[in-house]
Amino acid sequence: MIDEIRKKIDQKTKPLGSLGQLEDISTQICLLQKTLSPNLCNPTILVFAGDHGLAKSGVSAYPSQVTSQMVLNFLNGGAAINVICRQHGINLKVVDAGVDYDFKKDEKLINAKIAKGTQNSAETNAMSKKELQTCFIKAEDIIESVYLANSNIVGFGEMGIGNTSSASLIMSTLCNIPIRDCVGRGTGLNDKQLDNKKTILNKVLQNHSPVVDAFDALAKFGGFEIAQICSAMLAAHKREMIIMIDGFIATAAYLCALKINPKIKRNAIFCHQSQENGHQLMLDYLKVKPLLNLRMRLGEGIACALAYPIIKSAVLFINEMESFDSARISKMI
Amino acid sequence: MIDEIRKKIDQKTKPLGSLGQLEDISTQICLLQKTLSPNLCNPTILVFAGDHGLAKSGVSAYPSQVTSQMVLNFLNGGAAINVICRQHGINLKVVDAGVDYDFKKDEKLINAKIAKGTQNSAETNAMSKKELQTCFIKAEDIIESVYLANSNIVGFGEMGIGNTSSASLIMSTLCNIPIRDCVGRGTGLNDKQLDNKKTILNKVLQNHSPVVDAFDALAKFGGFEIAQICSAMLAAHKREMIIMIDGFIATAAYLCALKINPKIKRNAIFCHQSQENGHQLMLDYLKVKPLLNLRMRLGEGIACALAYPIIKSAVLFINEMESFDSARISKMI
Repeated sequence: MIDEIRKKIDQKTKPLGSLGQLEDISTQICLLQKTLSPNLCNPTILVFAGDHGLAKSGVSAYPSQVTSQMVLNFLNGGAAINVICRQHGINLKVVDAGVDYDFKKDEKLINAKIAKGTQNSAETNAMSKKELQTCFIKAEDIIESVYLANSNIVGFGEMGIGNTSSASLIMSTLCNIPIRDCVGRGTGLNDKQLDNKKTILNKVLQNHSPVVDAFDALAKFGGFEIAQICSAMLAAHKREMIIMIDGFIATAAYLCALKINPKIKRNAIFCHQSQENGHQLMLDYLKVKPLLNLRMRLGEGIACALAYPIIKSAVLFINEMESFDSARISKMI
Repeated sequence: MIDEIRKKIDQKTKPLGSLGQLEDISTQICLLQKTLSPNLCNPTILVFAGDHGLAKSGVSAYPSQVTSQMVLNFLNGGAAINVICRQHGINLKVVDAGVDYDFKKDEKLINAKIAKGTQNSAETNAMSKKELQTCFIKAEDIIESVYLANSNIVGFGEMGIGNTSSASLIMSTLCNIPIRDCVGRGTGLNDKQLDNKKTILNKVLQNHSPVVDAFDALAKFGGFEIAQICSAMLAAHKREMIIMIDGFIATAAYLCALKINPKIKRNAIFCHQSQENGHQLMLDYLKVKPLLNLRMRLGEGIACALAYPIIKSAVLFINEMESFDSARISKMI
C-alpha cells in the first residue's frame, strides 16, 4: 500500500518530495483510509470543558469562573475557536465534562458532566475510579454520535482554568521528565506566580507518587475534560477517524491515550507547537513535528481549526493534481 | 494607531498575546489599511514564468522545456498551485515574463514576454538595461490591473528552470554572503550536481563582479520573472496592498525590491521557510519568521496559497471575536 501511495505522489507534476509535510499527511490519511483517493467528511471540533479543584491553590492567572464564562462565549459564537470554525465550515460542539455551572440547553452543548469540577489534587485524588470510568463511557458515546453524523476527522480542544497543571503532572509522570521542565505560564503567570506553581505541582506530585499508569495519572491529576478527551481519542481511533491534536493539554490527553493503545499514533495529526513551556519537550518525547508553529498558547482547539485547511490541501493535491504523464511534462534529466 | 490596535486585540476573550503570530499579522494589516476593521478583497496569486540562458550550463535537474510545460499545466488547472487556489477561492493568473514557447491566448495567461529566455549569465549579462526597464513597466501594469479588479492582497509565485541559480547569485551579492552558502539543490540535484552548480555560480559571480545595486544584480543574473516580481512588489507597495512572499526565489525578488524601497517591508507577509538551502539565511538577513515551515521546496506561489487562510484568520479574529466586556468574562486575577 505504502509503495502505491508513494508512486501516486511521485507521479504528480512537482519535484520529488517538494510538498514536504503535505506529502506525509497525505500518505498517513491514505494508509488510515486504505485508499489512494482519501477524503475528509464533516470535520468536527469538540471542545471539552471542566473545572479543577487545584485552581483554588493559585496555579492560574484567571479565576475558575472563567471556565463557565468561556463556555457561554463558545455557545454564543464569540470566541476565537468560533471564528475559525466558521471560516472553514468546521462543526463545533462544546462538551460540559465537569464545569462548575448549570448551563441551559443549547444545541451546541453536549452534557457529559461528571461533577462540578474535580477534587483538589493538592489534597486528594482529582477524581474517583468510578468517575474516571464514567468519563470514558460518556466520551465514547460522544464520538459514536460524531461518527454516525458521518464525520471522519475530529479535533479536540479544551477549556478549564487550572488544566495546564494537570497536563504538566501527567506529562511528568508518563514521560518521566522532571516537573520543573513540564510547567509553564498557562494563561499568563508572571515569574513569581510561575515559581509558586512549580512549588505547588512538585508537592502534588510527591503526594501522589508512585503513579502506576495513564489511568492512575488521570484519576490523580484530572481533569474530567482531559480524561474525556483521552477516551474520545481512543474511540476515534477505533472508528479509524483522523484525530487532530491541539496544544499542550490535548497532547497530554493524547499521551495517556497512546500509553493505553499505541496504535492510535497512525490516526494522530499534530497541529501546533504551543508556546507553553513543556510542549516542545512532550513533542520531542513523542518524536513528532506539528504542522504549525505560530507562537500561540490558547487551547480551545484553535490549532486544529487553523491546521484543518492544510490537512485538506494534503487530501486535495493527491486527488486533483495531474501526473507527469497526463500533463506531458519532462522528467528529471 | 498602534496603541488602539493593541487595545482592541487585548480586549478579545483570550489570554494576552495568546494568538501569537496571528496578532502580529492582524496588527500589520490594520496599520497598512489604517483601520481597526481590516479586510481582504479578491486575493490574487500571480505566477511569473521565464526561461534562463544559464540552464544550458547544467544547473538544474530538469530540462528547460519544463518551464513551458508547467505553464501549460497551470493553464489547464493541474498543478499544485491550481488545487490550493481553488480550495481557497484565490484568483490565479500566470504571467509569461519570458518563456521559450509561443502560448495560445488564454484568459488565465498574461503576456508580458520580454524575450524567449534570458541570455546565459555564464557568458554575458542575463538581460540588457532596456529589457530590465521593460520588465519593470510591464509588471507595474499587471499590478495596476489587479488593483483595479479590487484586490488588496497579492501573492507572487514563479516558474523557471534555472531560477534558483539567479536567486542565489542575487542573494550572494545583495546580502554579501558567500555564494556556497546561497546555493541549494533546486528541484532536486544530487551531491555531484550540487557541487557542479556551486562551481558554475562561483565563476558567474566572479565574471560579473562588482555588482553595484539591485538593478545591476537583476540585469546581470536575471531572470525576467524575478525582475518582474520585484517590480510588481514595488507597485503593490505603492497601492498599499498586502504582499504575500512565497519561497526562495520570491524572497530574492523581495530582497531586490527592499533594496530599492525599504518601505515595502510594511506590506510583506512571509509565508514559508523553504527547504532550499540559503532561504533560512536570507530570512535571517531580513530578520523575519514566516508563517509556515512545512519542508516544501516547490515555488509556484504554493506557500502563499497555503498561508492565505491563516492571514484571513488574523483578519477575522480582530473583526469577529467578542471582547471581555461584551462577553462578561472575568479578567486576570
